[in-house]
Amino acid sequence: MSSINVIPPQSGAAFKISKGDVLTVIDPLGKQVSDMVLFNNADKKEKISSGKTMDFEETILLSKGNFLWSNRSQKMMEIIEDTNGRNDFLLAPCSPETFKIMYNNPSYHPSCLENLNKNLLQFHIDLDEIPTAFNIFMNVQFDKEGKLKVLPPTSKQGDLIRFKAEMDLIVGLTACSAEDSNGGVFKPIHFIVTTSKSVAKDIINFNQQ
Amino acid sequence: MSSINVIPPQSGAAFKISKGDVLTVIDPLGKQVSDMVLFNNADKKEKISSGKTMDFEETILLSKGNFLWSNRSQKMMEIIEDTNGRNDFLLAPCSPETFKIMYNNPSYHPSCLENLNKNLLQFHIDLDEIPTAFNIFMNVQFDKEGKLKVLPPTSKQGDLIRFKAEMDLIVGLTACSAEDSNGGVFKPIHFIVTTSKSVAKDIINFNQQ
Repeated sequence: MSSINVIPPQSGAAFKISKGDVLTVIDPLGKQVSDMVLFNNADKKEKISSGKTMDFEETILLSKGNFLWSNRSQKMMEIIEDTNGRNDFLLAPCSPETFKIMYNNPSYHPSCLENLNKNLLQFHIDLDEIPTAFNIFMNVQFDKEGKLKVLPPTSKQGDLIRFKAEMDLIVGLTACSAEDSNGGVFKPIHFIVTTSKSVAKDIINFNQQ
Repeated sequence: MSSINVIPPQSGAAFKISKGDVLTVIDPLGKQVSDMVLFNNADKKEKISSGKTMDFEETILLSKGNFLWSNRSQKMMEIIEDTNGRNDFLLAPCSPETFKIMYNNPSYHPSCLENLNKNLLQFHIDLDEIPTAFNIFMNVQFDKEGKLKVLPPTSKQGDLIRFKAEMDLIVGLTACSAEDSNGGVFKPIHFIVTTSKSVAKDIINFNQQ
């Protein structure tokens, strides 16, 4: 069994995975959002694109069977399992300015953008290169007029989403830091990387736990 | 009166405007989309952000009174007039791959991404630096499940949208090249830049024409 990696509350991680690997992102306690960004490991100017993904997949909400696309119109990941089913690309990762402008909080506050930045620096990816993230387990509601409202996630303890890598990737992943997005309580996010050689066996093991 | 600039069908333009200037984008014949991207002229790593704009404005559809925000959480433009009222950030600019993948057309086809790229090169902005564009006059419909459908624009002959620049900007602007987005007919886009000193007078003149 591949090991479970823990992202503590209000923090992040960055790591490499190879084409064919499976990344499982787990909400261990429920109602916790995780922001994910992707870069092509062979050329970091190729990165996950909200606009290209919504364009090619023809949907705002993304779940099992959908692909995540790059700014160069290449498939980066396929969603191969999704037990919760609410993920989108609408809102940017929370940043220091989110809390100043939207929460009217002038003090320091941890944020997904800072946590992505801190962790992606080891791969020489700068703050300005971080794109709009894929919002895993995030419950952004929209009405007919397009008005947006962030509600607590619908994800329950142990809900997971599983991605198959379509190219060698650098992944940035967070346990989100924004009060409104996480039902007011900050929890960890777990993730597992299963290498392509052991995918079949490990998925069986994981499901049997 | 400031001069009217013409973007011929299936082409683009790029130009600088200063803080306080007003940019008017006009659909002279109706049912024509225009894609717009923005860069901070003082530092091109700061650019228009779909995620930050939808986040701070709390809406998918953007019209009069909304601001367009950068990846650094700064206001880049304010929409000060909008006679049509349907503009969004959902889908990326059409690219060569759009026509191959979504239109199943393997031949060369003009595209907004290519037209933005060609015109932004003069400002040393490369292809990979072009973000998801602001889709002016674009009629992207979404249902409750988030499924997306592109319909012909609702814009009529002479409809316009007017932006006030909140910083010195490099603007990329197109007359969109995708069949489905423009009711199957490719038309020009007109634009006018009114410098801050003459804004009041020129807007009065324009409205009286």
